[in-house]
Amino acid sequence: MLSASVDIRVRYKETDQMGVVYHANYFTWFEIARIELLDQMGCPYLDLEKKGYLLPVLTCSASFQSPAFFDDRLQVKVEIAKIPLVRIQASYEVRRGSELLVTGQTEHAFVSRAGRVVRPPENFLNLAKKSFED
Amino acid sequence: MLSASVDIRVRYKETDQMGVVYHANYFTWFEIARIELLDQMGCPYLDLEKKGYLLPVLTCSASFQSPAFFDDRLQVKVEIAKIPLVRIQASYEVRRGSELLVTGQTEHAFVSRAGRVVRPPENFLNLAKKSFED
Amino acid sequence: MLSASVDIRVRYKETDQMGVVYHANYFTWFEIARIELLDQMGCPYLDLEKKGYLLPVLTCSASFQSPAFFDDRLQVKVEIAKIPLVRIQASYEVRRGSELLVTGQTEHAFVSRAGRVVRPPENFLNLAKKSFED
Amino acid sequence: MLSASVDIRVRYKETDQMGVVYHANYFTWFEIARIELLDQMGCPYLDLEKKGYLLPVLTCSASFQSPAFFDDRLQVKVEIAKIPLVRIQASYEVRRGSELLVTGQTEHAFVSRAGRVVRPPENFLNLAKKSFED
Repeated sequence: MLSASVDIRVRYKETDQMGVVYHANYFTWFEIARIELLDQMGCPYLDLEKKGYLLPVLTCSASFQSPAFFDDRLQVKVEIAKIPLVRIQASYEVRRGSELLVTGQTEHAFVSRAGRVVRPPENFLNLAKKSFED
Repeated sequence: MLSASVDIRVRYKETDQMGVVYHANYFTWFEIARIELLDQMGCPYLDLEKKGYLLPVLTCSASFQSPAFFDDRLQVKVEIAKIPLVRIQASYEVRRGSELLVTGQTEHAFVSRAGRVVRPPENFLNLAKKSFED
Repeated sequence: MLSASVDIRVRYKETDQMGVVYHANYFTWFEIARIELLDQMGCPYLDLEKKGYLLPVLTCSASFQSPAFFDDRLQVKVEIAKIPLVRIQASYEVRRGSELLVTGQTEHAFVSRAGRVVRPPENFLNLAKKSFED
Repeated sequence: MLSASVDIRVRYKETDQMGVVYHANYFTWFEIARIELLDQMGCPYLDLEKKGYLLPVLTCSASFQSPAFFDDRLQVKVEIAKIPLVRIQASYEVRRGSELLVTGQTEHAFVSRAGRVVRPPENFLNLAKKSFED
C-alpha cells in the first residue's frame, strides 16, 4: 500500500458565504496529497510532466460529513490500495484532529502530451511495486 | 422531472498547465446550473438563504470523458429525476456542441443556519411537485 | 479608444465568509472583459496564443468601494485609452446598475512562448490603430 | 515595524495554461502572510472576526517581475511599515530563494459586521504599538 499525508491550513479564500470551505476545494487538497505521495515514492509529478507524462483525473468523488472552517488545521491522507496498472485509484480522508470530515476517491491514467492513454513510466511502476512489497 | 441548462464560456483562470480546464472547476459549473434550476422553479437560492435555509453539498462526483479548453462555449445541463424529499439528487452533463465532455452527480439536503438537516421549505416542495406533475 | 463590457452574475464560489465577493476574483472578471475586448477588435486571445503570443499581466491594481454579493448581476467595463505599443494599459469599472463598486488597472506586454517581450503582432496593431481612428 | 513570512508550495490548481501561476493567486498568498502576521502579533484574524471585526481589502496592487511555476517553494513576506491607525498598509514580497518574483501592496480598514469603518480593536492597537517600540 502507498500512502502519504499533508497538513493543510484553511485559507480565507477557500471559504464561501455559508462560512465553511467550499466543497470543490477539497479536490485541490486531494491533489496536494497526491503530489506528496509521488514525492515520497521518489517519483515527483513535476519530473513526470517533464518526461511527457500527464496524470489527469478520470473520475472523482467526495462525501462531506462535517464542514471545515477558516483557519482549521487539517490532515489530508491519500492511499493507493492496489498496485497501479493502467488505472490508478486513490482514496482520501480529511480530518481535523481525530474527526473525519470528508472522504473521497479519484482515478487517474497516465496520458501523453497528445492525450493518448499510455503505460505508466517504468520508473513509476518499479517504485510502486517496491512500495507494495515493503 | 426538473431540468435546466446554462451556457458557460471557459475562463482563462479555469485552465491549468495541462492546457485544459482544471477538474474541480466543473463542480462550480454544476452549481451555476443548480442556481438556474432553482430560478426557473420560482425558488431562487438567494431567497432560500434569506429565509434561513442552506443547501450544502453532501456528496459529489464527476466523470471526465474529454477535456474542455480555454474559451470553449459549453452547455451545462442539470436534472433532478425524482421528487426531492429529504435528499435532493441532481445529475449533470457538460457538452461542447453535441460532444459530451463530463457527467456528474451531487446530493444535497436543506440545512438550517445552525447546521441541522431540516424539511425542505413548503414553497420549494410545492413548486417541485408541480413541476413533476407537468 | 478601445472599450468593451461584459455581464457577470456572481457565482457562489466567488463569495467568502464575509458574505461578499473575495477581492482577488475581480481580477478574473477584468480578464473576461479583456478577452471580450480582443474579440470585438477581431483579434481573439485564443488566436494570439495559437500564433505564439502570450499577454501576461505585468502589474495590476484594484480599489474596492462597495462589495458585490452572491447572485448580483454586474457589468465589467474595460477601456484602453492609449494606442498600445509595447505596454498595454487597461482600466476597468465594475458596476451594479448605476452603482460603481470597483475600479482597476492592468498592464500587459506581448511575450513569446520563451518569455521574451516582443512587438505586438502586426494584426493587433493595425486593428488597434483603426479603432483609435474611428 | 511589523513583519512576517510564510512558505508556500505552488499548487497545480494555481497554474494556468501559460504554465505559470495565475496572477490573481498572489493576492491569496498575500493574505496567508497577513494571517500569519496577525498570529505572530498575538491577534489572530479568526478572533478578530469572532469579536465582530472584519478587515476587508480596500485597495490592492501587484507587480510581476518573474513567473512562479508549479511546485515552486516560495517565500511570501509581509511588512507593515507604519503604526496602523484607521488605514492599515501592508507591502509584500514573493521570492523563490533569493530571486524576487512579485511585489505588492494592500490597504485595509477595520469594519463592523454592518459594514461601517470602525476604530481598530484596543487589543490590536496595543499589540501593534508594542511591536513598533521593540
